[in-house]
Amino acid sequence: MDAATDRHDLEVLSLQECLTLLGSRPLGRLAYVDKGVPSIVPVNHIVDGRTVVFRALHGAKTDALLMGRPVAFEVDDHDPARAVGWSVLVRGRAEPVDDEEARRFAAELDTWAAPTAMRHVIVRILPDEITGRRLRRP
Amino acid sequence: MDAATDRHDLEVLSLQECLTLLGSRPLGRLAYVDKGVPSIVPVNHIVDGRTVVFRALHGAKTDALLMGRPVAFEVDDHDPARAVGWSVLVRGRAEPVDDEEARRFAAELDTWAAPTAMRHVIVRILPDEITGRRLRRP
Repeated sequence: MDAATDRHDLEVLSLQECLTLLGSRPLGRLAYVDKGVPSIVPVNHIVDGRTVVFRALHGAKTDALLMGRPVAFEVDDHDPARAVGWSVLVRGRAEPVDDEEARRFAAELDTWAAPTAMRHVIVRILPDEITGRRLRRP
Repeated sequence: MDAATDRHDLEVLSLQECLTLLGSRPLGRLAYVDKGVPSIVPVNHIVDGRTVVFRALHGAKTDALLMGRPVAFEVDDHDPARAVGWSVLVRGRAEPVDDEEARRFAAELDTWAAPTAMRHVIVRILPDEITGRRLRRP
Protein backbone atom coordinates (compact mmCIF):
# COMPACT_ATOMS: atom_id res chain seq x y z
CA MET A 1 0.00 0.00 0.00
CA ASP A 2 1.29 3.41 -0.89
CA ALA A 3 0.42 5.18 2.35
CA ALA A 4 0.44 8.96 2.55
CA THR A 5 3.35 10.56 4.36
CA ASP A 6 3.67 14.00 5.89
CA ARG A 7 6.54 16.43 5.30
CA HIS A 8 8.51 14.69 8.08
CA ASP A 9 8.25 11.38 6.20
CA LEU A 10 5.93 9.88 8.81
CA GLU A 11 3.00 7.80 7.62
CA VAL A 12 -0.27 9.67 8.03
CA LEU A 13 -2.92 7.47 9.67
CA SER A 14 -6.56 7.44 8.60
CA LEU A 15 -9.29 8.54 11.01
CA GLN A 16 -10.36 4.92 11.44
CA GLU A 17 -6.82 3.82 12.25
CA CYS A 18 -6.53 6.71 14.73
CA LEU A 19 -9.73 5.69 16.52
CA THR A 20 -8.69 2.03 16.63
CA LEU A 21 -5.27 2.89 18.05
CA LEU A 22 -6.75 5.40 20.53
CA GLY A 23 -8.92 2.64 21.94
CA SER A 24 -6.14 0.05 21.96
CA ARG A 25 -4.46 1.42 25.08
CA PRO A 26 -6.06 1.95 28.49
CA LEU A 27 -4.07 5.08 29.20
CA GLY A 28 -3.29 8.32 27.43
CA ARG A 29 -2.01 11.78 28.31
CA LEU A 30 -4.25 14.80 28.71
CA ALA A 31 -2.87 18.31 28.17
CA TYR A 32 -4.66 21.39 29.44
CA VAL A 33 -3.69 25.03 29.76
CA ASP A 34 -3.63 27.08 32.96
CA LYS A 35 -2.89 30.80 32.42
CA GLY A 36 -1.05 30.02 29.21
CA VAL A 37 1.08 27.26 30.74
CA PRO A 38 0.48 23.66 29.59
CA SER A 39 0.35 20.63 31.87
CA ILE A 40 0.20 16.93 31.05
CA VAL A 41 -1.44 14.26 33.19
CA PRO A 42 -1.84 10.53 32.44
CA VAL A 43 -5.47 9.35 32.50
CA ASN A 44 -7.37 6.15 31.85
CA HIS A 45 -9.72 6.55 28.95
CA ILE A 46 -12.13 4.85 26.59
CA VAL A 47 -13.19 5.78 23.08
CA ASP A 48 -16.91 6.39 22.47
CA GLY A 49 -17.62 7.01 18.80
CA ARG A 50 -15.21 9.77 17.84
CA THR A 51 -14.91 11.07 21.39
CA VAL A 52 -12.52 10.28 24.23
CA VAL A 53 -14.00 9.76 27.70
CA PHE A 54 -12.05 9.83 30.95
CA ARG A 55 -12.45 10.48 34.67
CA ALA A 56 -11.25 13.65 36.33
CA LEU A 57 -11.29 14.62 39.96
CA HIS A 58 -14.40 16.57 40.82
CA GLY A 59 -13.75 20.13 41.89
CA ALA A 60 -13.50 23.77 41.04
CA LYS A 61 -10.03 23.36 39.53
CA THR A 62 -11.21 20.66 37.14
CA ASP A 63 -14.18 22.78 36.13
CA ALA A 64 -12.05 25.85 35.55
CA LEU A 65 -9.26 24.15 33.63
CA LEU A 66 -11.19 21.55 31.63
CA MET A 67 -14.84 22.27 31.08
CA GLY A 68 -15.44 24.04 27.78
CA ARG A 69 -11.72 24.56 27.40
CA PRO A 70 -9.37 23.43 24.64
CA VAL A 71 -7.50 20.26 25.57
CA ALA A 72 -5.30 17.70 23.84
CA PHE A 73 -5.20 13.97 24.39
CA GLU A 74 -2.43 11.73 23.11
CA VAL A 75 -1.88 7.99 22.97
CA ASP A 76 1.30 6.46 21.61
CA ASP A 77 3.38 3.33 21.51
CA HIS A 78 7.07 3.22 20.60
CA ASP A 79 9.66 0.51 20.42
CA PRO A 80 13.09 2.19 20.31
CA ALA A 81 14.85 -1.13 19.75
CA ARG A 82 13.00 -1.69 16.48
CA ALA A 83 12.66 2.03 15.64
CA VAL A 84 8.91 1.76 15.14
CA GLY A 85 6.04 3.55 16.78
CA TRP A 86 2.86 5.51 16.38
CA SER A 87 1.04 8.37 18.05
CA VAL A 88 -2.49 9.72 17.85
CA LEU A 89 -3.47 13.23 18.93
CA VAL A 90 -6.99 14.48 19.66
CA ARG A 91 -7.54 18.21 19.97
CA GLY A 92 -10.89 19.50 21.08
CA ARG A 93 -12.97 20.75 23.98
CA ALA A 94 -13.80 18.99 27.22
CA GLU A 95 -17.33 18.81 28.62
CA PRO A 96 -18.97 16.80 31.39
CA VAL A 97 -21.16 13.89 30.30
CA ASP A 98 -24.76 13.79 31.54
CA ASP A 99 -25.87 11.55 34.42
CA GLU A 100 -27.16 8.76 32.21
CA GLU A 101 -23.93 8.62 30.23
CA ALA A 102 -21.94 8.81 33.45
CA ARG A 103 -23.65 5.64 34.70
CA ARG A 104 -22.98 3.94 31.38
CA PHE A 105 -19.30 4.87 31.31
CA ALA A 106 -18.61 4.34 35.02
CA ALA A 107 -18.50 0.56 34.64
CA GLU A 108 -16.28 0.73 31.56
CA LEU A 109 -13.75 3.19 32.89
CA ASP A 110 -11.00 1.40 34.72
CA THR A 111 -10.36 3.02 38.07
CA TRP A 112 -6.96 1.58 38.82
CA ALA A 113 -5.19 4.88 38.28
CA ALA A 114 -7.61 6.88 40.42
CA PRO A 115 -8.46 6.17 44.05
CA THR A 116 -12.17 5.36 44.09
CA ALA A 117 -12.70 7.20 47.37
CA MET A 118 -12.31 10.51 45.55
CA ARG A 119 -15.30 12.18 43.91
CA HIS A 120 -15.01 12.03 40.15
CA VAL A 121 -16.62 13.58 37.18
CA ILE A 122 -16.66 11.88 33.78
CA VAL A 123 -15.46 14.11 30.98
CA ARG A 124 -15.77 13.81 27.21
CA ILE A 125 -13.51 15.42 24.66
CA LEU A 126 -15.46 16.62 21.63
CA PRO A 127 -12.80 16.50 18.91
CA ASP A 128 -12.05 19.33 16.52
CA GLU A 129 -9.22 17.30 15.04
CA ILE A 130 -7.94 13.72 15.28
CA THR A 131 -4.55 13.04 13.69
CA GLY A 132 -2.09 10.18 13.80
CA ARG A 133 1.38 9.34 12.54
CA ARG A 134 3.32 6.12 12.26
CA LEU A 135 7.08 6.03 12.23
CA ARG A 136 8.31 4.02 9.27
CA ARG A 137 11.50 2.02 9.23
CA PRO A 138 14.14 3.84 7.21
CA MET B 1 9.51 4.60 54.70
CA ASP B 2 6.61 6.90 55.36
CA ALA B 3 6.49 8.61 51.97
CA ALA B 4 4.54 11.84 51.52
CA THR B 5 1.26 11.59 49.67
CA ASP B 6 -0.75 14.28 47.94
CA ARG B 7 -4.47 14.90 48.40
CA HIS B 8 -5.21 12.22 45.77
CA ASP B 9 -3.31 9.65 47.86
CA LEU B 10 -0.53 9.38 45.31
CA GLU B 11 3.04 9.18 46.59
CA VAL B 12 4.91 12.44 46.02
CA LEU B 13 8.35 11.81 44.47
CA SER B 14 11.46 13.71 45.47
CA LEU B 15 13.29 15.88 42.95
CA GLN B 16 16.08 13.31 42.75
CA GLU B 17 13.59 10.50 42.06
CA CYS B 18 11.93 12.66 39.41
CA LEU B 19 15.24 13.32 37.63
CA THR B 20 16.21 9.64 37.78
CA LEU B 21 12.86 8.53 36.36
CA LEU B 22 12.90 11.28 33.70
CA GLY B 23 16.21 9.94 32.43
CA SER B 24 15.14 6.30 32.64
CA ARG B 25 13.05 6.39 29.46
CA PRO B 26 14.22 7.45 25.98
CA LEU B 27 10.91 9.08 25.10
CA GLY B 28 8.54 11.56 26.69
CA ARG B 29 5.69 13.80 25.60
CA LEU B 30 6.08 17.51 24.98
CA ALA B 31 3.09 19.85 25.32
CA TYR B 32 3.09 23.33 23.81
CA VAL B 33 0.39 25.92 23.27
CA ASP B 34 -0.66 27.43 19.94
CA LYS B 35 -3.21 30.26 20.24
CA GLY B 36 -4.48 28.87 23.54
CA VAL B 37 -4.84 25.32 22.22
CA PRO B 38 -2.50 22.65 23.59
CA SER B 39 -0.80 19.95 21.52
CA ILE B 40 1.21 16.91 22.59
CA VAL B 41 4.02 15.33 20.60
CA PRO B 42 6.27 12.40 21.58
CA VAL B 43 9.98 13.24 21.54
CA ASN B 44 13.25 11.51 22.35
CA HIS B 45 15.01 13.24 25.19
CA ILE B 46 17.91 13.18 27.58
CA VAL B 47 18.28 14.74 31.02
CA ASP B 48 21.15 17.20 31.51
CA GLY B 49 21.38 18.34 35.13
CA ARG B 50 17.88 19.55 35.97
CA THR B 51 17.01 20.26 32.35
CA VAL B 52 15.43 18.18 29.60
CA VAL B 53 17.03 18.27 26.14
CA PHE B 54 15.37 17.13 22.93
CA ARG B 55 15.44 17.63 19.16
CA ALA B 56 12.83 19.65 17.33
CA LEU B 57 12.43 20.26 13.64
CA HIS B 58 14.14 23.46 12.59
CA GLY B 59 11.78 26.11 11.29
CA ALA B 60 9.68 29.16 11.94
CA LYS B 61 6.88 27.14 13.52
CA THR B 62 9.23 25.56 16.06
CA ASP B 63 10.67 28.96 16.88
CA ALA B 64 7.26 30.55 17.29
CA LEU B 65 5.71 27.78 19.38
CA LEU B 66 8.64 26.66 21.49
CA MET B 67 11.40 29.20 21.94
CA GLY B 68 10.96 31.23 25.11
CA ARG B 69 7.47 29.81 25.51
CA PRO B 70 5.99 27.80 28.39
CA VAL B 71 6.02 24.06 27.69
CA ALA B 72 5.41 20.87 29.62
CA PHE B 73 7.24 17.58 29.33
CA GLU B 74 6.00 14.33 30.80
CA VAL B 75 7.43 10.84 31.19
CA ASP B 76 5.47 8.00 32.70
CA ASP B 77 5.28 4.26 33.05
CA HIS B 78 2.16 2.33 34.01
CA ASP B 79 1.31 -1.32 34.43
CA PRO B 80 -2.48 -1.63 34.48
CA ALA B 81 -2.30 -5.35 35.27
CA ARG B 82 -0.50 -4.63 38.56
CA ALA B 83 -2.14 -1.24 39.12
CA VAL B 84 1.19 0.48 39.59
CA GLY B 85 2.78 3.39 37.78
CA TRP B 86 4.51 6.73 38.01
CA SER B 87 4.64 10.00 36.13
CA VAL B 88 6.98 12.97 36.17
CA LEU B 89 6.05 16.41 34.85
CA VAL B 90 8.43 19.24 33.98
CA ARG B 91 7.01 22.69 33.43
CA GLY B 92 9.24 25.45 32.16
CA ARG B 93 10.44 27.38 29.16
CA ALA B 94 12.12 26.10 26.04
CA GLU B 95 15.27 27.64 24.60
CA PRO B 96 17.76 26.61 21.92
CA VAL B 97 21.10 25.32 23.16
CA ASP B 98 24.28 26.99 21.87
CA ASP B 99 26.42 25.45 19.11
CA GLU B 100 28.92 23.86 21.47
CA GLU B 101 26.17 22.22 23.52
CA ALA B 102 24.42 21.14 20.32
CA ARG B 103 27.54 19.25 19.26
CA ARG B 104 27.78 17.65 22.70
CA PHE B 105 24.13 16.56 22.75
CA ALA B 106 23.89 15.50 19.11
CA ALA B 107 25.72 12.25 19.74
CA GLU B 108 23.68 11.44 22.83
CA LEU B 109 20.26 12.16 21.39
CA ASP B 110 18.84 9.13 19.71
CA THR B 111 17.52 9.99 16.30
CA TRP B 112 15.35 6.96 15.67
CA ALA B 113 12.13 8.93 16.04
CA ALA B 114 13.22 11.73 13.71
CA PRO B 115 14.38 11.35 10.13
CA THR B 116 17.99 12.51 10.06
CA ALA B 117 17.57 14.20 6.69
CA MET B 118 15.50 16.93 8.30
CA ARG B 119 17.19 19.97 9.79
CA HIS B 120 16.94 19.92 13.54
CA VAL B 121 17.48 22.27 16.41
CA ILE B 122 18.33 21.05 19.89
CA VAL B 123 16.11 22.52 22.56
CA ARG B 124 16.46 22.67 26.33
CA ILE B 125 13.64 23.06 28.82
CA LEU B 126 14.65 25.28 31.73
CA PRO B 127 12.37 24.00 34.48
CA ASP B 128 10.23 26.19 36.70
CA GLU B 129 8.82 23.09 38.37
CA ILE B 130 9.57 19.36 38.39
CA THR B 131 6.98 17.14 40.07
CA GLY B 132 6.32 13.43 40.19
CA ARG B 133 3.77 11.00 41.56
CA ARG B 134 3.74 7.28 42.08
CA LEU B 135 0.54 5.28 42.19
CA ARG B 136 0.49 3.11 45.29
CA ARG B 137 -1.22 -0.22 45.50
CA PRO B 138 -4.49 0.13 47.43
